[in-house]
Amino acid sequence: MLYFECDYSEGAHEKILERLAATNRESLPGYGMDHYCQSAKEKILAACQCPEGDVHLLVGGTQTNQIVISSMLRSYEGVVAAETGHINTHEAGAIETTGHKVLALPQHEGKIDGDELRRYLQTFYGDENHEHMVFPGMVYISHPTEYGTLYTKEELKSLSEICRQYKLPLYMDGARLGYGLVSPGTDVSLADVAKYCDVFYIGGTKVGALCGEAVVFTKNNTPPHFMTMVKQRGALLAKGRLLGIQFDTLFTDSLYLEISKNAIDTAEMLKQILREKGYPFYLDSPTNQIFVTLEDKKLKELQKNAVVSFWEKTDADHTVVRFATSWATSKEDVKKLAELL
Amino acid sequence: MLYFECDYSEGAHEKILERLAATNRESLPGYGMDHYCQSAKEKILAACQCPEGDVHLLVGGTQTNQIVISSMLRSYEGVVAAETGHINTHEAGAIETTGHKVLALPQHEGKIDGDELRRYLQTFYGDENHEHMVFPGMVYISHPTEYGTLYTKEELKSLSEICRQYKLPLYMDGARLGYGLVSPGTDVSLADVAKYCDVFYIGGTKVGALCGEAVVFTKNNTPPHFMTMVKQRGALLAKGRLLGIQFDTLFTDSLYLEISKNAIDTAEMLKQILREKGYPFYLDSPTNQIFVTLEDKKLKELQKNAVVSFWEKTDADHTVVRFATSWATSKEDVKKLAELL
Amino acid sequence: MLYFECDYSEGAHEKILERLAATNRESLPGYGMDHYCQSAKEKILAACQCPEGDVHLLVGGTQTNQIVISSMLRSYEGVVAAETGHINTHEAGAIETTGHKVLALPQHEGKIDGDELRRYLQTFYGDENHEHMVFPGMVYISHPTEYGTLYTKEELKSLSEICRQYKLPLYMDGARLGYGLVSPGTDVSLADVAKYCDVFYIGGTKVGALCGEAVVFTKNNTPPHFMTMVKQRGALLAKGRLLGIQFDTLFTDSLYLEISKNAIDTAEMLKQILREKGYPFYLDSPTNQIFVTLEDKKLKELQKNAVVSFWEKTDADHTVVRFATSWATSKEDVKKLAELL
Amino acid sequence: MLYFECDYSEGAHEKILERLAATNRESLPGYGMDHYCQSAKEKILAACQCPEGDVHLLVGGTQTNQIVISSMLRSYEGVVAAETGHINTHEAGAIETTGHKVLALPQHEGKIDGDELRRYLQTFYGDENHEHMVFPGMVYISHPTEYGTLYTKEELKSLSEICRQYKLPLYMDGARLGYGLVSPGTDVSLADVAKYCDVFYIGGTKVGALCGEAVVFTKNNTPPHFMTMVKQRGALLAKGRLLGIQFDTLFTDSLYLEISKNAIDTAEMLKQILREKGYPFYLDSPTNQIFVTLEDKKLKELQKNAVVSFWEKTDADHTVVRFATSWATSKEDVKKLAELL
Repeated sequence: MLYFECDYSEGAHEKILERLAATNRESLPGYGMDHYCQSAKEKILAACQCPEGDVHLLVGGTQTNQIVISSMLRSYEGVVAAETGHINTHEAGAIETTGHKVLALPQHEGKIDGDELRRYLQTFYGDENHEHMVFPGMVYISHPTEYGTLYTKEELKSLSEICRQYKLPLYMDGARLGYGLVSPGTDVSLADVAKYCDVFYIGGTKVGALCGEAVVFTKNNTPPHFMTMVKQRGALLAKGRLLGIQFDTLFTDSLYLEISKNAIDTAEMLKQILREKGYPFYLDSPTNQIFVTLEDKKLKELQKNAVVSFWEKTDADHTVVRFATSWATSKEDVKKLAELL
Repeated sequence: MLYFECDYSEGAHEKILERLAATNRESLPGYGMDHYCQSAKEKILAACQCPEGDVHLLVGGTQTNQIVISSMLRSYEGVVAAETGHINTHEAGAIETTGHKVLALPQHEGKIDGDELRRYLQTFYGDENHEHMVFPGMVYISHPTEYGTLYTKEELKSLSEICRQYKLPLYMDGARLGYGLVSPGTDVSLADVAKYCDVFYIGGTKVGALCGEAVVFTKNNTPPHFMTMVKQRGALLAKGRLLGIQFDTLFTDSLYLEISKNAIDTAEMLKQILREKGYPFYLDSPTNQIFVTLEDKKLKELQKNAVVSFWEKTDADHTVVRFATSWATSKEDVKKLAELL
Repeated sequence: MLYFECDYSEGAHEKILERLAATNRESLPGYGMDHYCQSAKEKILAACQCPEGDVHLLVGGTQTNQIVISSMLRSYEGVVAAETGHINTHEAGAIETTGHKVLALPQHEGKIDGDELRRYLQTFYGDENHEHMVFPGMVYISHPTEYGTLYTKEELKSLSEICRQYKLPLYMDGARLGYGLVSPGTDVSLADVAKYCDVFYIGGTKVGALCGEAVVFTKNNTPPHFMTMVKQRGALLAKGRLLGIQFDTLFTDSLYLEISKNAIDTAEMLKQILREKGYPFYLDSPTNQIFVTLEDKKLKELQKNAVVSFWEKTDADHTVVRFATSWATSKEDVKKLAELL
Repeated sequence: MLYFECDYSEGAHEKILERLAATNRESLPGYGMDHYCQSAKEKILAACQCPEGDVHLLVGGTQTNQIVISSMLRSYEGVVAAETGHINTHEAGAIETTGHKVLALPQHEGKIDGDELRRYLQTFYGDENHEHMVFPGMVYISHPTEYGTLYTKEELKSLSEICRQYKLPLYMDGARLGYGLVSPGTDVSLADVAKYCDVFYIGGTKVGALCGEAVVFTKNNTPPHFMTMVKQRGALLAKGRLLGIQFDTLFTDSLYLEISKNAIDTAEMLKQILREKGYPFYLDSPTNQIFVTLEDKKLKELQKNAVVSFWEKTDADHTVVRFATSWATSKEDVKKLAELL
């Protein structure tokens, strides 16, 4: 069976497992106070060119979104997001559970539009009274988006300026950030992300770690007692070393970007094959997620030998599916898939 | 430096790391749907002699307490616990964050008393109106307690009967359950726990895993859509294999109990030494936590070469400290500590 | 100055004030346990032709929506509503505060469409997994809607059938229910509301009371310990008599419908005038809210002598405004307004 | 039947009803933006000698506690209160519903002790780490307490100093504040309350209003967007005039204190009678609540003709009951009660 279902089907990059084994019997303080966490944080800030930043290591993406957003919003505020944003669709209401509304804006291939954002925010600062409405308190974007698309540097800069004008933090969900950073078409670097966002996270779970996301507060703006809020949400790992060692490894010798590149290379290879074979793309994604419309008959046949991800039905006989590559995808598997297509 | 600070200072039992490495490149479904999770659940239920039970694997203890308790309480209910219960003292208000009150009962070396529990519950069923009060909706106990003490089978049975009389689930926090099960004095087996509790968890983090706790619903009583509630709290691990493989390993060939025994053996060894040297015990704990009163001068000296845990000041010159052993404690280290004492 | 801004500009119907004065020195039990509350409940159930129903009196509309919805949803569920539903737009996130998401459907002059609702609900019962999404747990409609429009009996019946098919309670926000019930075009009676909805509330605040909304659970389906949940939300009035006496008065000799009729009569009168003068209606509302597009110049002039409600800008020179009549609007005032128009 | 059960058995002082009737047909803006609310606020601040203060009018006591406390705490903070504090015992978990823990201190006739408070707060600022604990974020006191007792000016000043030292707001629940202010033994004036507390409320419901509590933020410290948070909790009254007119009346010509005095006078009269007849007082309360131990036989007889409040059983044959007087208690009723005793 060939697996192109998602980017979290395998374990971790072998270097991570080796580091875990090599350090296993060291007695270390708990709760992220160990020197591996410290080292990981330093390496991450160096990679971000953001020496004034602050890094916290958490376990998973929904958890990270929930804690970052709820810790930065005031109780009467909501978070602005594309209607297709992960927090608005596939996190089981994790934001609302903390008492906050997701304020949905239209999506454009998964992205929000700067002009639409500005118009929306302006309404809260006009003559009319908005005291009976949920105030926007933060802007959430995902990069890559849930459709694999990317913001350009210009778009990111523009969103950042709008947010600063309205004094709202700009937060980037980087569950697949690595795959965005090494996409051939992008002009957005990790330093740009740190520059334009007030807070973002570098996804580990989908980019070679067993688990783990690294939150970066970029502007000396970590909420007070953030660690207590992490504990309060049940998210403080006793053996913080598990996260520290993984991120320290990923940010040693650019391993994070290097393994991200494998996902992009194999995705490009697969896209080329799909293009040649005449499969219609649902949209043009420059990262590791490929959305293609298949005849249901063809899909059924394919599913005998390959696992892909259902996206949506387009009509009675066609389905959009997602092929995802990852740090772990081999060129051999892409070739085998090509034969099935 | 000698580490007796806590039972989560080292990584994981080596067999776990080996299994993680051996299975690393297998492509598996996410979110706990893989066969290792399935196998772990079966082995756990077999060990519990509870074939009708249901197991869910979560990442950490506070998270587990938060999710189990909030998913079983109705919105107007609170959870009864000893005033020293972990949920009432050291989880940063994780229960209250979900909207529920911890209803504290007096503690007796960390335990609640059956008669006091019964009297408390009775007040809600007398003539008087209690509609302005928080209703008890669940009873929480820890075993071993935060003081390392254990309930007897008779005590556990009695609490269970009281809970059933009042139709309240009895929940056991088993963060250190392994250490309780192999304590020389105990008459409580894992099957007893499953029999008398409606839900409990088997702690992995403190007993040889990198992370992970196994929740067991024992009476065909898993709350509907439990998985969605886990997701909603940010606690659903994408790579559920990380938990499945660990618990599958721990519950193969009784590894869990075997490594628990190391903690008890080294604790007994240390207690013998402390007794011989005349150190006064703060209380008599039959598990892996040892509470001793030290002169501050002595403590300061000791801390040059050993890490122990501060518990409380008893007077201007004395401090209660906790020595903790674990699955990873070596007899050599206990001997070295003996020399320092 | 002429007031057509809203339907809560004046105090209460004089009969209410007289009853409050006449009963003032009676010593009564608190928290709604008095005989006026009891009598009000009986009269309301009789008017609803719903003897098996259960009535609770609350203070205001947002409070009522918050308590009814949060007490009927499970923690992983959200409430389905039109995107323009009051709970989704103008209640400051009161639903999200309780941890639940508002699941917005498209609105059609403020109403939801049965077919769209059915299609939405079906997706949760197909082959695909929805465990990462917020489950629909209730359907909220307002009648009259925020645009003054009404469901037909056929539409209401259809929504009711869909809800029963999917085992979801249908909840009607009747903040202005009186105005809907006496609208000339409607075929929906109070008994129909009780028949087709699982729970609804009869608005008092906007229909002649100082404050107060009467929640009716129609199917022997009051959530257990509802009163405690009311208290928990800070909504239990110590002097419940204030609500009991008001609703007892409103439901004596059909006062509620009678005073509602005044709003409709004066609204019809005003609509006739607007029509004659050629003002373009924004939409056709059959109740007490009239939406008209005005030139900004005209609006500015009008505002010197009359208060109306801003709705939205349609272009640089035009604004939609709302004229609202109420139980307290006099024909004289409508005539005076006519002169200004 | 004679009513001494509580202080909210009757409607409102007649002057309030007269004002409501006299102003009934005035068309006024909603949500507390009317001139009666404005006037009430000015009179209250004048009475408090606190020109820099800010007043908000809310409907009930639990609602007020819930909103004030949740709007002033950060998410990781709890509120310190006496274990017998109303928020900890009889508000159905209204504070926990907002996600915050009540941190209970020992009570001394309903009061907290300054030294115990200081010692408790100090522990959070010592060497030890408290990041896994709920931080104290506010101190709640009731005055009069739930036992009718009062803080002295010296005690209040001391609590205030401790709170300022630790930068915690001091909040007074003044549900029965009027009865405290006119108690013969007190040296605490309304101006003192405003001086020493950061926020407090003046209870209307129990002191002559139909409903209503006036929150005073005394130090230019109203939380931003407080009105939105009030709306979000379902507590914003559409017809705010109902509260404005009541408090404007109560604070005209010192009506509030004048009617409070009636409760104290009748309570003193009743205490004198009880003393003469040899009834043992459970504790010595200087306000309108009188706690007496009765033989159950005697109580049963008394209950044929009088309503009193059950407090607690002391042994098999005795019960503590509470007699409450109020603004509405007549001397004639006290005399009639005397005959029954």
